[in-house]
Amino acid sequence: MAIQLEEVVSTSRGARRRMWTRERLIEAARTVVARQGIDDTTIADITNAADVGIGSFYNHFESKEHLVETLVAQAIETYGAALDRLVAHLSDPAEIFSICVRHTMRMADHDPVWAWFTVRAGFYVRELESGLGVRLLRDLGRGIESGRFTPGDVRSALVVIGGAVVAAMQGRLLGVRDLPADHLIAEQLLRMLGVPADEAERIASLPLAEPLLETAHSSAPGGNR
Amino acid sequence: MAIQLEEVVSTSRGARRRMWTRERLIEAARTVVARQGIDDTTIADITNAADVGIGSFYNHFESKEHLVETLVAQAIETYGAALDRLVAHLSDPAEIFSICVRHTMRMADHDPVWAWFTVRAGFYVRELESGLGVRLLRDLGRGIESGRFTPGDVRSALVVIGGAVVAAMQGRLLGVRDLPADHLIAEQLLRMLGVPADEAERIASLPLAEPLLETAHSSAPGGNR
Repeated sequence: MAIQLEEVVSTSRGARRRMWTRERLIEAARTVVARQGIDDTTIADITNAADVGIGSFYNHFESKEHLVETLVAQAIETYGAALDRLVAHLSDPAEIFSICVRHTMRMADHDPVWAWFTVRAGFYVRELESGLGVRLLRDLGRGIESGRFTPGDVRSALVVIGGAVVAAMQGRLLGVRDLPADHLIAEQLLRMLGVPADEAERIASLPLAEPLLETAHSSAPGGNR
Repeated sequence: MAIQLEEVVSTSRGARRRMWTRERLIEAARTVVARQGIDDTTIADITNAADVGIGSFYNHFESKEHLVETLVAQAIETYGAALDRLVAHLSDPAEIFSICVRHTMRMADHDPVWAWFTVRAGFYVRELESGLGVRLLRDLGRGIESGRFTPGDVRSALVVIGGAVVAAMQGRLLGVRDLPADHLIAEQLLRMLGVPADEAERIASLPLAEPLLETAHSSAPGGNR
Protein backbone atom coordinates (compact mmCIF):
# COMPACT_ATOMS: atom_id res chain seq x y z
CA MET A 1 0.00 0.00 0.00
CA ALA A 2 1.87 3.05 -1.23
CA ILE A 3 1.05 6.22 0.66
CA GLN A 4 2.13 9.65 -0.55
CA LEU A 5 3.95 11.92 1.92
CA GLU A 6 1.46 14.77 1.56
CA GLU A 7 -1.34 12.35 2.22
CA VAL A 8 0.31 11.34 5.48
CA VAL A 9 0.73 14.96 6.56
CA SER A 10 -2.83 15.95 5.77
CA THR A 11 -4.18 12.75 7.29
CA SER A 12 -2.31 13.38 10.48
CA ARG A 13 -3.63 16.94 10.65
CA GLY A 14 -7.13 15.61 10.05
CA ALA A 15 -6.55 12.87 12.57
CA ARG A 16 -5.52 15.40 15.19
CA ARG A 17 -8.64 17.44 14.56
CA ARG A 18 -10.75 14.31 14.71
CA MET A 19 -9.12 13.27 17.99
CA TRP A 20 -9.74 16.71 19.40
CA THR A 21 -13.44 16.63 18.50
CA ARG A 22 -13.72 13.13 19.90
CA GLU A 23 -12.18 14.17 23.21
CA ARG A 24 -14.44 17.22 23.35
CA LEU A 25 -17.48 14.99 22.91
CA ILE A 26 -16.29 12.62 25.64
CA GLU A 27 -15.61 15.49 28.04
CA ALA A 28 -18.98 17.04 27.32
CA ALA A 29 -20.76 13.70 27.77
CA ARG A 30 -19.03 13.22 31.12
CA THR A 31 -20.28 16.57 32.39
CA VAL A 32 -23.79 16.24 31.01
CA VAL A 33 -24.26 12.64 32.13
CA ALA A 34 -22.97 13.50 35.60
CA ARG A 35 -25.58 16.27 35.81
CA GLN A 36 -28.65 14.60 34.38
CA GLY A 37 -27.98 10.86 34.23
CA ILE A 38 -27.48 8.63 31.23
CA ASP A 39 -31.14 8.04 30.46
CA ASP A 40 -32.07 11.70 30.36
CA THR A 41 -29.09 12.71 28.23
CA THR A 42 -29.66 13.17 24.52
CA ILE A 43 -27.08 13.33 21.78
CA ALA A 44 -28.10 16.94 21.21
CA ASP A 45 -27.32 17.73 24.88
CA ILE A 46 -23.84 16.36 24.33
CA THR A 47 -23.10 18.11 21.05
CA ASN A 48 -24.48 21.39 22.47
CA ALA A 49 -22.20 21.12 25.50
CA ALA A 50 -19.27 20.23 23.23
CA ASP A 51 -20.18 23.05 20.86
CA VAL A 52 -19.93 20.83 17.80
CA GLY A 53 -22.52 20.03 15.17
CA ILE A 54 -24.72 17.01 15.74
CA GLY A 55 -23.39 15.47 12.53
CA SER A 56 -19.91 15.38 14.05
CA PHE A 57 -21.20 13.09 16.72
CA TYR A 58 -21.85 10.33 14.24
CA ASN A 59 -18.40 10.67 12.74
CA HIS A 60 -17.07 9.42 16.06
CA PHE A 61 -19.72 7.34 17.74
CA GLU A 62 -22.46 5.06 16.49
CA SER A 63 -24.82 5.93 19.29
CA LYS A 64 -25.10 7.45 22.73
CA GLU A 65 -24.43 3.98 24.15
CA HIS A 66 -21.18 3.75 22.19
CA LEU A 67 -20.00 7.06 23.63
CA VAL A 68 -21.03 6.01 27.14
CA GLU A 69 -19.07 2.77 26.74
CA THR A 70 -15.98 4.76 25.81
CA LEU A 71 -16.57 7.02 28.79
CA VAL A 72 -16.87 4.04 31.13
CA ALA A 73 -13.72 2.40 29.77
CA GLN A 74 -11.76 5.63 30.27
CA ALA A 75 -13.15 6.23 33.74
CA ILE A 76 -12.32 2.68 34.83
CA GLU A 77 -8.83 2.89 33.39
CA THR A 78 -8.13 6.20 35.14
CA TYR A 79 -9.42 4.80 38.41
CA GLY A 80 -7.34 1.64 38.02
CA ALA A 81 -4.20 3.66 37.42
CA ALA A 82 -4.92 5.74 40.55
CA LEU A 83 -5.36 2.54 42.57
CA ASP A 84 -2.03 1.28 41.27
CA ARG A 85 -0.31 4.44 42.49
CA LEU A 86 -2.06 4.20 45.86
CA VAL A 87 -0.68 0.74 46.65
CA ALA A 88 2.67 1.06 44.85
CA HIS A 89 4.60 1.26 48.14
CA LEU A 90 3.00 -1.88 49.62
CA SER A 91 4.29 -5.43 49.28
CA ASP A 92 1.76 -7.70 51.00
CA PRO A 93 -0.66 -8.95 48.31
CA ALA A 94 -3.37 -9.38 50.94
CA GLU A 95 -3.10 -5.76 52.01
CA ILE A 96 -3.05 -4.55 48.42
CA PHE A 97 -6.09 -6.64 47.60
CA SER A 98 -8.02 -5.41 50.63
CA ILE A 99 -7.32 -1.75 49.89
CA CYS A 100 -8.31 -2.07 46.23
CA VAL A 101 -11.55 -3.89 46.98
CA ARG A 102 -12.55 -1.53 49.79
CA HIS A 103 -11.75 1.60 47.78
CA THR A 104 -13.78 0.35 44.87
CA MET A 105 -16.83 -0.39 47.00
CA ARG A 106 -16.59 3.06 48.57
CA MET A 107 -16.68 4.68 45.16
CA ALA A 108 -20.45 4.22 45.40
CA ASP A 109 -20.42 6.92 48.08
CA HIS A 110 -17.56 9.07 46.85
CA ASP A 111 -18.37 9.13 43.16
CA PRO A 112 -21.84 7.70 42.52
CA VAL A 113 -21.71 8.57 38.83
CA TRP A 114 -18.54 6.55 38.35
CA ALA A 115 -20.06 3.76 40.43
CA TRP A 116 -23.28 3.68 38.37
CA PHE A 117 -21.21 3.63 35.19
CA THR A 118 -19.25 0.71 36.51
CA VAL A 119 -22.21 -1.26 37.80
CA ARG A 120 -24.35 -0.62 34.73
CA ALA A 121 -21.54 -1.50 32.38
CA GLY A 122 -21.80 -5.02 33.73
CA PHE A 123 -18.40 -4.40 35.28
CA TYR A 124 -17.35 -7.91 36.09
CA VAL A 125 -18.08 -9.36 32.67
CA ARG A 126 -16.08 -6.90 30.66
CA GLU A 127 -13.52 -6.43 33.35
CA LEU A 128 -12.42 -10.04 33.26
CA GLU A 129 -10.69 -9.05 30.06
CA SER A 130 -9.71 -5.45 30.67
CA GLY A 131 -9.25 -2.63 33.15
CA LEU A 132 -9.86 -3.62 36.74
CA GLY A 133 -10.15 -7.33 35.93
CA VAL A 134 -6.65 -7.44 34.48
CA ARG A 135 -5.32 -5.61 37.54
CA LEU A 136 -7.12 -7.97 39.88
CA LEU A 137 -5.76 -11.00 38.04
CA ARG A 138 -2.28 -9.53 38.26
CA ASP A 139 -2.63 -8.95 42.03
CA LEU A 140 -4.07 -12.42 42.59
CA GLY A 141 -1.21 -13.90 40.56
CA ARG A 142 1.38 -12.13 42.72
CA GLY A 143 -0.31 -13.41 45.87
CA ILE A 144 -0.37 -16.96 44.52
CA GLU A 145 3.30 -16.80 43.53
CA SER A 146 4.32 -15.62 46.97
CA GLY A 147 2.13 -18.26 48.63
CA ARG A 148 -0.08 -15.62 50.28
CA PHE A 149 -3.17 -16.69 48.31
CA THR A 150 -4.30 -20.26 47.65
CA PRO A 151 -7.55 -19.78 45.77
CA GLY A 152 -7.50 -22.91 43.66
CA ASP A 153 -9.20 -21.83 40.43
CA VAL A 154 -8.37 -18.16 39.84
CA ARG A 155 -11.14 -17.32 37.40
CA SER A 156 -13.84 -18.49 39.77
CA ALA A 157 -12.28 -16.38 42.53
CA LEU A 158 -12.39 -13.46 40.09
CA VAL A 159 -16.12 -13.95 39.42
CA VAL A 160 -16.86 -14.07 43.15
CA ILE A 161 -14.79 -10.96 43.86
CA GLY A 162 -16.24 -9.01 40.94
CA GLY A 163 -19.78 -10.07 41.82
CA ALA A 164 -19.32 -9.14 45.47
CA VAL A 165 -17.89 -5.71 44.70
CA VAL A 166 -20.66 -4.91 42.22
CA ALA A 167 -23.32 -6.15 44.65
CA ALA A 168 -21.90 -4.01 47.45
CA MET A 169 -21.71 -0.95 45.20
CA GLN A 170 -25.22 -1.50 43.90
CA GLY A 171 -26.55 -1.88 47.44
CA ARG A 172 -24.93 1.41 48.45
CA LEU A 173 -26.18 3.19 45.36
CA LEU A 174 -29.71 1.98 46.00
CA GLY A 175 -29.51 3.03 49.65
CA VAL A 176 -30.14 -0.48 50.99
CA ARG A 177 -30.24 -0.36 54.79
CA ASP A 178 -27.93 -2.36 57.03
CA LEU A 179 -25.42 -3.13 54.29
CA PRO A 180 -22.27 -4.66 55.74
CA ALA A 181 -19.25 -2.36 55.92
CA ASP A 182 -16.65 -2.66 53.17
CA HIS A 183 -14.03 -4.12 55.51
CA LEU A 184 -16.31 -7.02 56.42
CA ILE A 185 -16.75 -7.93 52.76
CA ALA A 186 -13.00 -7.64 52.14
CA GLU A 187 -12.46 -9.94 55.11
CA GLN A 188 -14.73 -12.61 53.59
CA LEU A 189 -12.85 -12.41 50.31
CA LEU A 190 -9.44 -12.66 51.98
CA ARG A 191 -10.54 -15.82 53.78
CA MET A 192 -11.77 -17.23 50.49
CA LEU A 193 -8.30 -16.56 49.07
CA GLY A 194 -6.77 -18.65 51.84
CA VAL A 195 -5.71 -15.96 54.31
CA PRO A 196 -6.25 -17.26 57.88
CA ALA A 197 -9.34 -15.82 59.57
CA ASP A 198 -7.56 -13.74 62.24
CA GLU A 199 -5.18 -12.23 59.72
CA ALA A 200 -7.97 -11.57 57.26
CA GLU A 201 -9.80 -9.63 59.97
CA ARG A 202 -6.73 -7.62 60.91
CA ILE A 203 -5.74 -6.75 57.35
CA ALA A 204 -9.26 -5.87 56.24
CA SER A 205 -9.66 -3.54 59.22
CA LEU A 206 -6.55 -1.44 58.55
CA PRO A 207 -7.36 2.27 58.21
CA LEU A 208 -8.09 3.30 54.67
CA ALA A 209 -6.71 6.42 53.01
CA GLU A 210 -9.03 9.13 51.82
CA PRO A 211 -11.12 8.44 48.73
CA LEU A 212 -9.29 8.46 45.46
CA LEU A 213 -9.92 11.80 43.85
CA GLU A 214 -8.36 10.97 40.56
CA THR A 215 -11.23 9.26 38.86
CA ALA A 216 -11.82 10.37 35.34
CA HIS A 217 -15.17 11.73 36.33
CA SER A 218 -14.25 13.99 39.20
CA SER A 219 -11.04 15.18 37.55
CA ALA A 220 -12.87 16.13 34.38
CA PRO A 221 -12.32 19.74 33.41
CA GLY A 222 -15.62 21.46 34.01
CA GLY A 223 -16.87 18.48 36.00
CA ASN A 224 -19.53 19.59 38.42
CA ARG A 225 -18.56 17.65 41.53
CA MET B 1 -65.53 -0.75 62.30
CA ALA B 2 -68.98 -2.29 61.95
CA ILE B 3 -69.39 -4.31 58.77
CA GLN B 4 -72.74 -5.65 57.57
CA LEU B 5 -72.97 -9.35 56.72
CA GLU B 6 -74.23 -8.72 53.19
CA GLU B 7 -71.36 -6.33 52.64
CA VAL B 8 -68.92 -9.10 53.61
CA VAL B 9 -70.53 -11.59 51.25
CA SER B 10 -70.60 -9.23 48.29
CA THR B 11 -67.07 -8.01 49.06
CA SER B 12 -65.76 -11.52 49.17
CA ARG B 13 -67.45 -12.35 45.86
CA GLY B 14 -65.96 -9.18 44.38
CA ALA B 15 -62.61 -10.01 45.95
CA ARG B 16 -62.64 -13.47 44.39
CA ARG B 17 -63.36 -12.01 40.98
CA ARG B 18 -60.63 -9.45 41.46
CA MET B 19 -58.17 -12.16 42.50
CA TRP B 20 -59.10 -14.19 39.46
CA THR B 21 -58.52 -11.26 37.09
CA ARG B 22 -55.24 -10.49 38.82
CA GLU B 23 -54.01 -14.07 38.44
CA ARG B 24 -55.09 -14.07 34.79
CA LEU B 25 -53.05 -10.94 34.15
CA ILE B 26 -50.00 -12.43 35.88
CA GLU B 27 -50.28 -15.69 33.91
CA ALA B 28 -50.68 -13.78 30.66
CA ALA B 29 -47.71 -11.55 31.46
CA ARG B 30 -45.58 -14.59 32.19
CA THR B 31 -46.36 -16.11 28.79
CA VAL B 32 -46.01 -12.88 26.83
CA VAL B 33 -42.81 -11.76 28.57
CA ALA B 34 -41.29 -15.21 28.08
CA ARG B 35 -42.01 -14.94 24.37
CA GLN B 36 -41.01 -11.37 23.60
CA GLY B 37 -39.02 -10.08 26.57
CA ILE B 38 -39.93 -7.44 29.12
CA ASP B 39 -38.95 -4.42 27.06
CA ASP B 40 -41.00 -5.36 24.03
CA THR B 41 -44.09 -6.24 26.03
CA THR B 42 -46.84 -3.64 26.23
CA ILE B 43 -49.73 -3.53 28.67
CA ALA B 44 -52.06 -4.08 25.71
CA ASP B 45 -50.17 -7.30 24.85
CA ILE B 46 -50.83 -8.53 28.36
CA THR B 47 -54.50 -7.58 28.55
CA ASN B 48 -55.09 -9.07 25.10
CA ALA B 49 -53.49 -12.35 26.14
CA ALA B 50 -55.49 -12.31 29.38
CA ASP B 51 -58.66 -11.41 27.47
CA VAL B 52 -59.53 -8.61 29.86
CA GLY B 53 -60.08 -4.91 29.17
CA ILE B 54 -57.08 -2.62 29.41
CA GLY B 55 -58.86 -0.68 32.17
CA SER B 56 -58.83 -3.80 34.34
CA PHE B 57 -55.07 -3.76 34.27
CA TYR B 58 -54.91 -0.52 36.21
CA ASN B 59 -57.32 -1.85 38.83
CA HIS B 60 -54.62 -4.30 39.78
CA PHE B 61 -51.26 -2.86 38.83
CA GLU B 62 -49.86 0.64 38.68
CA SER B 63 -47.62 -0.11 35.74
CA LYS B 64 -46.01 -2.84 33.69
CA GLU B 65 -43.06 -2.69 36.08
CA HIS B 66 -45.35 -3.31 39.04
CA LEU B 67 -46.77 -6.43 37.36
CA VAL B 68 -43.29 -7.64 36.44
CA GLU B 69 -42.18 -7.19 40.06
CA THR B 70 -45.07 -9.36 41.19
CA LEU B 71 -44.16 -11.92 38.56
CA VAL B 72 -40.54 -11.99 39.70
CA ALA B 73 -41.49 -12.34 43.37
CA GLN B 74 -43.77 -15.28 42.54
CA ALA B 75 -41.22 -16.97 40.29
CA ILE B 76 -38.49 -16.65 42.91
CA GLU B 77 -40.77 -17.95 45.65
CA THR B 78 -41.79 -20.98 43.55
CA TYR B 79 -38.16 -21.71 42.72
CA GLY B 80 -37.13 -21.37 46.37
CA ALA B 81 -39.83 -23.82 47.45
CA ALA B 82 -38.65 -26.31 44.80
CA LEU B 83 -35.07 -25.96 46.06
CA ASP B 84 -36.28 -26.64 49.60
CA ARG B 85 -37.92 -29.88 48.45
CA LEU B 86 -34.81 -30.89 46.54
CA VAL B 87 -32.52 -30.75 49.57
CA ALA B 88 -35.07 -31.80 52.21
CA HIS B 89 -33.45 -35.23 52.64
CA LEU B 90 -29.93 -33.83 53.19
CA SER B 91 -28.39 -32.89 56.51
CA ASP B 92 -24.92 -31.46 55.75
CA PRO B 93 -25.30 -27.66 55.52
CA ALA B 94 -22.28 -27.50 53.20
CA GLU B 95 -23.86 -29.95 50.78
CA ILE B 96 -27.22 -28.16 50.91
CA PHE B 97 -25.52 -24.83 50.30
CA SER B 98 -23.50 -26.14 47.37
CA ILE B 99 -26.53 -27.67 45.67
CA CYS B 100 -28.65 -24.54 46.08
CA VAL B 101 -25.95 -22.23 44.76
CA ARG B 102 -25.07 -24.46 41.79
CA HIS B 103 -28.70 -25.01 40.82
CA THR B 104 -29.38 -21.30 40.92
CA MET B 105 -26.41 -20.48 38.68
CA ARG B 106 -27.50 -23.17 36.22
CA MET B 107 -30.91 -21.58 35.93
CA ALA B 108 -29.27 -19.19 33.48
CA ASP B 109 -29.03 -22.14 31.08
CA HIS B 110 -32.17 -24.04 32.04
CA ASP B 111 -34.60 -21.15 32.32
CA PRO B 112 -33.05 -17.97 30.95
CA VAL B 113 -36.28 -16.02 31.37
CA TRP B 114 -36.37 -16.78 35.06
CA ALA B 115 -32.67 -16.00 35.28
CA TRP B 116 -33.07 -12.62 33.55
CA PHE B 117 -35.97 -11.79 35.85
CA THR B 118 -33.83 -12.61 38.83
CA VAL B 119 -30.74 -10.76 37.67
CA ARG B 120 -32.65 -7.72 36.51
CA ALA B 121 -34.68 -7.55 39.68
CA GLY B 122 -31.43 -6.74 41.46
CA PHE B 123 -31.79 -10.15 43.11
CA TYR B 124 -29.42 -9.77 45.98
CA VAL B 125 -30.72 -6.46 47.21
CA ARG B 126 -34.34 -7.46 47.56
CA GLU B 127 -33.50 -11.01 48.40
CA LEU B 128 -31.68 -10.06 51.56
CA GLU B 129 -35.16 -9.49 52.94
CA SER B 130 -37.26 -12.06 51.13
CA GLY B 131 -37.38 -15.16 48.98
CA LEU B 132 -33.99 -16.69 48.31
CA GLY B 133 -32.17 -14.39 50.72
CA VAL B 134 -34.25 -15.56 53.65
CA ARG B 135 -33.62 -19.17 52.65
CA LEU B 136 -29.90 -18.55 52.32
CA LEU B 137 -29.76 -16.87 55.73
CA ARG B 138 -31.63 -19.83 57.21
CA ASP B 139 -29.17 -22.31 55.65
CA LEU B 140 -26.16 -20.29 56.74
CA GLY B 141 -27.62 -20.11 60.26
CA ARG B 142 -27.97 -23.88 60.43
CA GLY B 143 -24.41 -24.33 59.25
CA ILE B 144 -23.14 -21.88 61.87
CA GLU B 145 -25.12 -23.58 64.65
CA SER B 146 -23.72 -26.97 63.75
CA GLY B 147 -20.19 -25.56 63.51
CA ARG B 148 -19.94 -26.40 59.81
CA PHE B 149 -19.69 -22.74 58.77
CA THR B 150 -17.59 -20.07 60.45
CA PRO B 151 -18.20 -17.02 58.27
CA GLY B 152 -17.80 -14.32 60.88
CA ASP B 153 -20.23 -11.62 59.77
CA VAL B 154 -23.19 -13.35 58.11
CA ARG B 155 -24.59 -10.41 56.17
CA SER B 156 -21.30 -9.76 54.43
CA ALA B 157 -21.13 -13.45 53.48
CA LEU B 158 -24.65 -13.04 52.08
CA VAL B 159 -23.64 -10.09 49.92
CA VAL B 160 -20.65 -12.01 48.54
CA ILE B 161 -22.74 -15.11 47.82
CA GLY B 162 -25.58 -13.16 46.23
CA GLY B 163 -23.18 -11.07 44.17
CA ALA B 164 -21.27 -14.15 42.99
CA VAL B 165 -24.41 -16.01 41.96
CA VAL B 166 -25.79 -13.01 40.08
CA ALA B 167 -22.44 -12.42 38.38
CA ALA B 168 -22.22 -16.06 37.31
CA MET B 169 -25.80 -16.03 36.00
CA GLN B 170 -25.27 -12.77 34.17
CA GLY B 171 -22.08 -14.10 32.60
CA ARG B 172 -23.90 -17.20 31.37
CA LEU B 173 -26.83 -15.16 30.06
CA LEU B 174 -24.48 -12.87 28.16
CA GLY B 175 -22.58 -15.82 26.73
CA VAL B 176 -19.25 -14.80 28.24
CA ARG B 177 -16.55 -17.26 27.15
CA ASP B 178 -14.45 -19.28 29.56
CA LEU B 179 -16.73 -18.70 32.52
CA PRO B 180 -15.76 -20.96 35.41
CA ALA B 181 -18.03 -23.95 36.03
CA ASP B 182 -20.64 -23.64 38.77
CA HIS B 183 -18.89 -26.16 41.02
CA LEU B 184 -15.71 -24.06 41.05
CA ILE B 185 -17.62 -21.02 42.24
CA ALA B 186 -19.45 -23.07 44.89
CA GLU B 187 -16.05 -24.34 46.05
CA GLN B 188 -14.76 -20.78 46.53
CA LEU B 189 -17.84 -19.88 48.57
CA LEU B 190 -17.57 -22.99 50.75
CA ARG B 191 -13.98 -22.11 51.57
CA MET B 192 -15.06 -18.59 52.44
CA LEU B 193 -17.60 -20.11 54.84
CA GLY B 194 -14.80 -21.96 56.60
CA VAL B 195 -15.04 -25.40 54.99
CA PRO B 196 -11.49 -26.82 54.57
CA ALA B 197 -10.20 -26.63 51.00
CA ASP B 198 -10.14 -30.39 50.27
CA GLU B 199 -13.65 -30.88 51.60
CA ALA B 200 -14.94 -27.82 49.78
CA GLU B 201 -13.60 -29.30 46.55
CA ARG B 202 -15.16 -32.70 47.20
CA ILE B 203 -18.58 -31.36 48.21
CA ALA B 204 -18.80 -28.82 45.40
CA SER B 205 -17.97 -31.55 42.84
CA LEU B 206 -20.75 -33.95 43.87
CA PRO B 207 -23.01 -34.83 40.95
CA LEU B 208 -25.99 -32.52 40.63
CA ALA B 209 -29.56 -33.66 40.01
CA GLU B 210 -31.35 -32.62 36.85
CA PRO B 211 -32.46 -29.01 36.57
CA LEU B 212 -35.40 -27.99 38.68
CA LEU B 213 -38.43 -28.01 36.44
CA GLU B 214 -40.77 -26.47 38.91
CA THR B 215 -39.98 -22.83 38.40
CA ALA B 216 -43.01 -20.63 38.18
CA HIS B 217 -42.11 -19.79 34.64
CA SER B 218 -41.79 -23.22 33.11
CA SER B 219 -44.69 -24.64 35.12
CA ALA B 220 -46.99 -21.83 34.03
CA PRO B 221 -50.15 -23.14 32.41
CA GLY B 222 -49.84 -22.20 28.78
CA GLY B 223 -46.16 -21.39 29.27
CA ASN B 224 -44.28 -21.83 26.02
CA ARG B 225 -41.18 -23.64 27.20
